[in-house]
Amino acid sequence: MRNQVPEPTLRRLPGYLFFLEKVREDGVLNVSAPTIGKALKCDPTQVVKDLSVTGIKGKPRVGYNTYELCHALEEYLGFNRLNEAFLVGAGNLGSALMAYQEHQTLGIKIIAAFDVNKDKIGQHIGGTHVLEYNKLFHLSNRLDVKIAILTTPNNVAQDVAEDLVNCGVKAIWNFTHTNLVLPEDIIVQNTSMSSFAAVLLSRLNDSEN
Amino acid sequence: MRNQVPEPTLRRLPGYLFFLEKVREDGVLNVSAPTIGKALKCDPTQVVKDLSVTGIKGKPRVGYNTYELCHALEEYLGFNRLNEAFLVGAGNLGSALMAYQEHQTLGIKIIAAFDVNKDKIGQHIGGTHVLEYNKLFHLSNRLDVKIAILTTPNNVAQDVAEDLVNCGVKAIWNFTHTNLVLPEDIIVQNTSMSSFAAVLLSRLNDSEN
Repeated sequence: MRNQVPEPTLRRLPGYLFFLEKVREDGVLNVSAPTIGKALKCDPTQVVKDLSVTGIKGKPRVGYNTYELCHALEEYLGFNRLNEAFLVGAGNLGSALMAYQEHQTLGIKIIAAFDVNKDKIGQHIGGTHVLEYNKLFHLSNRLDVKIAILTTPNNVAQDVAEDLVNCGVKAIWNFTHTNLVLPEDIIVQNTSMSSFAAVLLSRLNDSEN
Repeated sequence: MRNQVPEPTLRRLPGYLFFLEKVREDGVLNVSAPTIGKALKCDPTQVVKDLSVTGIKGKPRVGYNTYELCHALEEYLGFNRLNEAFLVGAGNLGSALMAYQEHQTLGIKIIAAFDVNKDKIGQHIGGTHVLEYNKLFHLSNRLDVKIAILTTPNNVAQDVAEDLVNCGVKAIWNFTHTNLVLPEDIIVQNTSMSSFAAVLLSRLNDSEN
């Protein structure tokens, strides 16, 4: 059933979670769909539909139990589990992600980063060490890491992705422009930053012409 | 005609550009669609179709002129223009983007960042200063900045976005979870990092169950 949940819904779920965590911190016990909707600029009907994937239902005239819903969302998103990941390519974007993930807003914990650049190896960024790329093979034997973040140059992305799959990685968050060709059971999430910039700039350009 | 170009095509264009820039640096004068396709793991038919949006056509048995195609892609994407942007919210992600953009791989140049946090104000990240938020209004009067990157907390995103629009911003790259409600002519590109993480984790979770 879960895999029928549409991607737009999945994308909205962390927003609900972050809002509810904030509300919970403020000691609010119950929160209604219209309140959530108002805060996140989302239609209340959509809120109810989105949140129903967690199995939690709001009560009429009371709303959702904040604690229960937070817990259900964390559980559903897997944010309460230690989602350990390798990162390959500690360049500009890789380093930025390492610095960012320290604050655990990604739901993913980078436990080791790898690079071939000697200037990068040995660095300590966002609580994580950058190791020599070759150590990936040894380390993956010891650790059961299923997630990898790929921030290498485009031209080595396919080779590195294949190495990662051989090391037991099941899901790759691909920040490169390379269209990875991997076994069907490997999950690939493409997130090229400059692609988003390209869409934005192109639309802006269109609107000005 | 341009606004009929599908978003997946737009998203692939920077990948072509970065590959071609590399090929051009290597002094290669002509490159074929199958070569491009092989490098980016993309079907050559798709390559030809995607690149046709630039108006450049490859020659039979020769391929594309590397210089001509690079120039056309830069022009089409607007990457050869100085796409100046404001950034609001110099927190973890904001700082990471500022550090990243220094290397100009986004096609966007952050010329000033704004924050309300006194610890952030005055910092110098990736070649850009973090200024007091209130200075946005004064500065936007002097500078004609059309693009803004929004990396504030979710709960202030809507207010800040409205301020930005009042300051003449026409396109907002929204990294928050807030579903911005803005005039129709304002371009919004939503790119919440934890949303991508959520999709990845959810798919991984499904595949393991």
